[in-house]
Amino acid sequence: MSESNSVLIGRKPAMNYVLACITLFHSGAKQVNIKARGKSISHAIDVVEIVRRKFLPDAKIAAISIGTDQLSPQDGETNNLTNVSTIEIVLER
Amino acid sequence: MSESNSVLIGRKPAMNYVLACITLFHSGAKQVNIKARGKSISHAIDVVEIVRRKFLPDAKIAAISIGTDQLSPQDGETNNLTNVSTIEIVLER
Repeated sequence: MSESNSVLIGRKPAMNYVLACITLFHSGAKQVNIKARGKSISHAIDVVEIVRRKFLPDAKIAAISIGTDQLSPQDGETNNLTNVSTIEIVLER
Repeated sequence: MSESNSVLIGRKPAMNYVLACITLFHSGAKQVNIKARGKSISHAIDVVEIVRRKFLPDAKIAAISIGTDQLSPQDGETNNLTNVSTIEIVLER
């Protein structure tokens, strides 16, 4: 799956990401990869549920995986690595 | 799987839920069901990752499913149903 079929979920309104997913499917993608980290994870689930329930009822969840990313310390912070949870949901049509 | 093997994730510190999961496994559970809705979903992923990475490296994720719950309107609110996303993660040992 090419990286261009990924939608990275951030803090914008859910509809922005829903539209991004629908646009990818309409441009011929068979799979769309929805990724999020930290607090955006709940938002990613919202996006997937809106896409499936309101717009593309034929879209299926092909896979859900979770994991942990280690963030390097930011300038001025202590040297501790911060762990952040991640999720990746593959929608298939 | 009996309902008593479920851990419902809320707003308490992650360690409370991590301990609940470990206690269930140590009391003989083969599977523990971790459930969350709305903003607690990110917290649920954190709990699962901490259990797997720090405490029970032999625990595997058997299944992850997402869905939508409809909440009835609260007293004094308008009659619109509110949709809230849900997640259920099955940890297996």
